[in-house]
Amino acid sequence: MNAISASAVAWVRNERLTPEDDDWEAVVSEIVLDPSLPAECLDGLEAFSHVEVIYHFHLVGEEQIISGTRRPRENSAWPQVGIFAQRARLRPNRLGVSVARLLRREGRSLFVRGLDALDGTPVLDLKPVMAEFLPRGEVRQPDWSHALMENYWERNG
Amino acid sequence: MNAISASAVAWVRNERLTPEDDDWEAVVSEIVLDPSLPAECLDGLEAFSHVEVIYHFHLVGEEQIISGTRRPRENSAWPQVGIFAQRARLRPNRLGVSVARLLRREGRSLFVRGLDALDGTPVLDLKPVMAEFLPRGEVRQPDWSHALMENYWERNG
Repeated sequence: MNAISASAVAWVRNERLTPEDDDWEAVVSEIVLDPSLPAECLDGLEAFSHVEVIYHFHLVGEEQIISGTRRPRENSAWPQVGIFAQRARLRPNRLGVSVARLLRREGRSLFVRGLDALDGTPVLDLKPVMAEFLPRGEVRQPDWSHALMENYWERNG
Repeated sequence: MNAISASAVAWVRNERLTPEDDDWEAVVSEIVLDPSLPAECLDGLEAFSHVEVIYHFHLVGEEQIISGTRRPRENSAWPQVGIFAQRARLRPNRLGVSVARLLRREGRSLFVRGLDALDGTPVLDLKPVMAEFLPRGEVRQPDWSHALMENYWERNG
């Protein structure tokens, strides 16, 4: 196994057309099933409050991918860390994983709040969020990652 | 965009050779970087307590994929729900996402506890777990999903 092929199961529609780093909680997205799938693959998802979305950073060119280290957001105040110690989009395989609040389902569409993906993003998988799949034990993380996330969901001041 | 190509960034090594549903917290796995990537792509990850692992359910054949509905674990006590309302492996694109506790890093390897993936599994991405990426707001889920998870991490009785 060296290459795995995946195809879009759904597509993101929202008003974010260009990459921006912050203020994602304000964004409501429609996730529309790809025509290749039947509507019933979403049945029962509305019983969950949150959905995990696996998607492709489709605007990142292969030549932009970083496979070593970089400073997050190229901010000199933060340490040079490996690409797998950050969640930046310029990463091998260009996969994003994010949890959004499920507002409602309408037929072949899900409406979600706070999905940090641009309009036109191909979605590769949708999973229900179960409390049992959250981290077991206390979460510990470095200070730079808290600073980076300060305005990510909601702009503070 | 109809097909996305991804390749393994790392590989799982552990003692789970065949699919089993439960008792995953007992499993310690070594995640070994693929030779195509430099060791420094893991630098800084050891400052995080948990790592999110995106992987490929490589033993699932294309003909096994369910794109409509099924009963989780084919248990008649649970409702027929869409494949995207469950986290079963027989899903379009066969992607798994799971959070494991990071025990230590040694050069090109991570040692983790509680990764629900079999020996030989190709890993497509590794991301640090940040508290800010956990669900915002209360998590709500149906009763069947709690029942399904009862023995998943640790066997109870």
